[in-house]
Amino acid sequence: MATGLVLYGYWRSSAAYRVRIALALKGLAWENRVVHLVKDGGQQHAADYAAMNPQQLVPSLRDGERVLTQSLAIMEYLEETRPEPPLLPADARGRARVRSLAQLVACDIHPLGNLRVLQYLERELGVGEAQRGAWSRHWIATGFAALEAMLAGNAATGRYCHGDTPGLADACLVPQLYNARRWKLPLDDYPTIVRIDAACHELEAFRVAAPEAQPDAL
Amino acid sequence: MATGLVLYGYWRSSAAYRVRIALALKGLAWENRVVHLVKDGGQQHAADYAAMNPQQLVPSLRDGERVLTQSLAIMEYLEETRPEPPLLPADARGRARVRSLAQLVACDIHPLGNLRVLQYLERELGVGEAQRGAWSRHWIATGFAALEAMLAGNAATGRYCHGDTPGLADACLVPQLYNARRWKLPLDDYPTIVRIDAACHELEAFRVAAPEAQPDAL
Repeated sequence: MATGLVLYGYWRSSAAYRVRIALALKGLAWENRVVHLVKDGGQQHAADYAAMNPQQLVPSLRDGERVLTQSLAIMEYLEETRPEPPLLPADARGRARVRSLAQLVACDIHPLGNLRVLQYLERELGVGEAQRGAWSRHWIATGFAALEAMLAGNAATGRYCHGDTPGLADACLVPQLYNARRWKLPLDDYPTIVRIDAACHELEAFRVAAPEAQPDAL
Repeated sequence: MATGLVLYGYWRSSAAYRVRIALALKGLAWENRVVHLVKDGGQQHAADYAAMNPQQLVPSLRDGERVLTQSLAIMEYLEETRPEPPLLPADARGRARVRSLAQLVACDIHPLGNLRVLQYLERELGVGEAQRGAWSRHWIATGFAALEAMLAGNAATGRYCHGDTPGLADACLVPQLYNARRWKLPLDDYPTIVRIDAACHELEAFRVAAPEAQPDAL
């Protein structure tokens, strides 16, 4: 029987990047399986991968014989099965806050700028490169404006999104900021987001999880 | 000090509909505050609502003095603070499965068909009504194909998404199917989804949570 954690991901996928951060924060060893999102017409569409993850998206996490999908569900599973150090606060109110910050990114920013969406805009709707860039920046800016207000206006925000311990919300924020920089979104309006991102990058866990630190990085 | 649960929602919002289902499954009383998404240029953009929910989206849930946002985070909070009856299974593996099904809908289908996205397609990219319909159906169909495979191909699926007890995944599935019908998506390819939806609608909790049962329904 297979043991250990195997992550099926791609260096530049925000969702895979989140899970790498969570794994690193918990100090867990994992085996890397690259699913190249462009090569071979997208290896996420290959039959063996699609059988494991019918959404044909990354990441998937294998834990022994179990296969888990959806980055937030994977991180909650890691939290439940490997509770130390925790990625969620101890109180229900704090957990709700951290989850809402994480979901703001994972539900309301990231899916709109995903590769498959940009491909649809280009191929089905004939949306050009400049307008695709404007689209991506628009949704990040809209989400970041709300995220900045929720972070700057709340006493629970500390060195990281919630207090002085990095967690689930930071694991979503940092990859989204990486993506924002790829799209050259001006960041002047989001000082708290930028400050928290910088604090995270001082931690080894975030450095080893970064896209450029992955073996499949271009 | 305020007590009790107050839901800020809109009858036809999928995300508000999810939370209404969760509240009804748990047998919780709540006060309804309508945030009309079209009237007055969108009441979700009014200053007092935006101060409470900087994303300017519904739903928000007030629990006494606390305000919670993001439908999945709200449902997890209800699960933690009002645990009976549970909306998540008792085992970590089951919880991961239910969360991944819920997030498939909440992250990878629903945000792409949201009002603000359709407005951007129309106003910024000049995408016509027929193509906006095709867009909406495309993302629902893509997500439903994966959801159908994950439900039909897994022994954990029962009368509902996970076993014979309705829960978090069903609270996401039913509103998305309601939305799919609005867009006239053919449903022949999703027999398991349709079967589970029908089973849910036999329950009082799903009937009282339905859009048409709300006082602000047109």
